Amino acid sequence: MRNILLTIEYDGTEYFGWQKQPNKKTIQGTIEEAIKKLTSEEVNLIGSGRTDRGVHALNQKANFKTSSKIPTEKFPLALNSVLPGDISVKDAVEVPLDFSARCSAKQKTYKYLIYNKKNRPALLRNYAYYYPYELDVDAMQRACEYFIGEYDFKSFCSADSEAKTTIRHIYNAYLNFENECIAIYITANGFLYNMARIIAGTILDVGAGKLKPMDIPLIIESKDRTRAGKTLPPWGLYLVDVVY
Amino acid sequence: MRNILLTIEYDGTEYFGWQKQPNKKTIQGTIEEAIKKLTSEEVNLIGSGRTDRGVHALNQKANFKTSSKIPTEKFPLALNSVLPGDISVKDAVEVPLDFSARCSAKQKTYKYLIYNKKNRPALLRNYAYYYPYELDVDAMQRACEYFIGEYDFKSFCSADSEAKTTIRHIYNAYLNFENECIAIYITANGFLYNMARIIAGTILDVGAGKLKPMDIPLIIESKDRTRAGKTLPPWGLYLVDVVY
Repeated sequence: MRNILLTIEYDGTEYFGWQKQPNKKTIQGTIEEAIKKLTSEEVNLIGSGRTDRGVHALNQKANFKTSSKIPTEKFPLALNSVLPGDISVKDAVEVPLDFSARCSAKQKTYKYLIYNKKNRPALLRNYAYYYPYELDVDAMQRACEYFIGEYDFKSFCSADSEAKTTIRHIYNAYLNFENECIAIYITANGFLYNMARIIAGTILDVGAGKLKPMDIPLIIESKDRTRAGKTLPPWGLYLVDVVY
Repeated sequence: MRNILLTIEYDGTEYFGWQKQPNKKTIQGTIEEAIKKLTSEEVNLIGSGRTDRGVHALNQKANFKTSSKIPTEKFPLALNSVLPGDISVKDAVEVPLDFSARCSAKQKTYKYLIYNKKNRPALLRNYAYYYPYELDVDAMQRACEYFIGEYDFKSFCSADSEAKTTIRHIYNAYLNFENECIAIYITANGFLYNMARIIAGTILDVGAGKLKPMDIPLIIESKDRTRAGKTLPPWGLYLVDVVY
C-alpha cells in the first residue's frame, strides 16, 4: 500500500466544485473515476480543501492510497490520458501512509483576479471578475497589509461555516498585476468558508472608495460579517499553492 | 451614414473562424447579427483580416456603415449586451467613409503561445500549444531576429494562399514570457495564409534543435514550404493589434 500525493490544475468552470456529490460533475469525483480506470480501485481522494463551484486551481494537492503497481512517477501521464482536458495532474509523489493532504496542510495561497477595464472581457470571462469602475490600487495595496497577522476573521466568513474557530493567521497579502488583471494574493495557515472571496470583496470596496484601508482593523475587530465587503463570484478565484 | 470602426476581443474556441459562412457560427456572422438586433440594418462587417477556426483576437479591428442614430461611443456597451460572452467589443470610433479595416491596415501583430511544461495544461488547454520537451529559448530568440526585414516569405505560406505577392515586411519578431508560456510576437505589414503559425512552428523547431537560427535565411531564400517547420495549431494564436 502506497500513499500518493497529486498536484492538480483545473478549470473549475464546468464543475460543481471539488467535493464529490451524487449525480453531479465534481473535480474529486472525476479524478476518483480516472484512478479507478487505471487501478480498478475505489479510492478516497483527500483534497487539501474544497473549492466551490467555478473556482479554479493551479496547484491543488490531494492524496489517495493504492495497492496498484503503477510507478508513482507514471501517474501524471497515465491519469492525464483518461482525465478530461480541463483537469491536469502535474505531479505525483509518494508520501508517508499517515500523510493527509487536508490535515497536514501548513499554509495555502489563493489569488483573486479582477479585470478592471471599461468593457467586459471575452477571453477571461470565466477567469476573472469584471469590474469596470475606477480603482485606487495604492489604497488596495495598503488595505492588503492590514490583513497580515493572526486575527479572528469572523467578519470574513460566511454564516454557514462549520469551522471550530474563526482565528486564522494570514502570512502575506498583496497585489500583483498579471494577465491584464489586478491579482490579490493571500497566504494563510487556513481559510474559512468564502474567506478569500470576502477579503477580495472588501479590498475591492477600498479600491472603489467605499472603505478606507484603516477601516480593515475595525472590520476585523467587529467580528461582524455585515461590515465586510460582499463575497465576490467564484470564477475570479484560484487555489495557487498548498505547503506541507 | 457613418462608418464605424470596432475593436473586438474574442475567444475563437467555439467559432469557425472570422469569415461568415452559411449555417456555421462565425465571429463576423455573430457580430453582424448583433448589429442587426440594435439597428435593424443588414451590415457588411469588414474585418482587418480573417482569423482561422480556433484563433483568438485581443484587438481585431472591423468597420461597418450605419444610418442608425445610436451614438458611436454607445456601440460597445450596446453590442456587448446582445453578443455572447466570448465576443466583446472594446471600442468604437467613427472613421472616414472611405476607410476600410482591411485595405487601410498598415501593420498587424500576432502572438503565438507555447506552454512548455512537462504535463499538459488545464486552464490554457484552448489558449496555448502544449509542447513538453526541452527548448533552447536563446536559439529561438536568435531565430526570431533572422525573420526581421522585407523578404519573399513563400516558404512560410500554405499552398492554398491566393495572395498576389508573397513578399512581406516583418518589422519585429521576438520572444516574451507571459502567463506561464513562451510567446512569439511577430509584427508585419501583412501576413500570408498560415504565415504566423508556420513561422512559430519553425522557431519551435529551432528551440527543439531540429534547425539552427542561421538556417532561417536559407529557408526564406529557398521559397520552399517543405523546408520550414509545421503549421502549429490555431488555438495558440492571437491577433494582438492592427495599426492604421
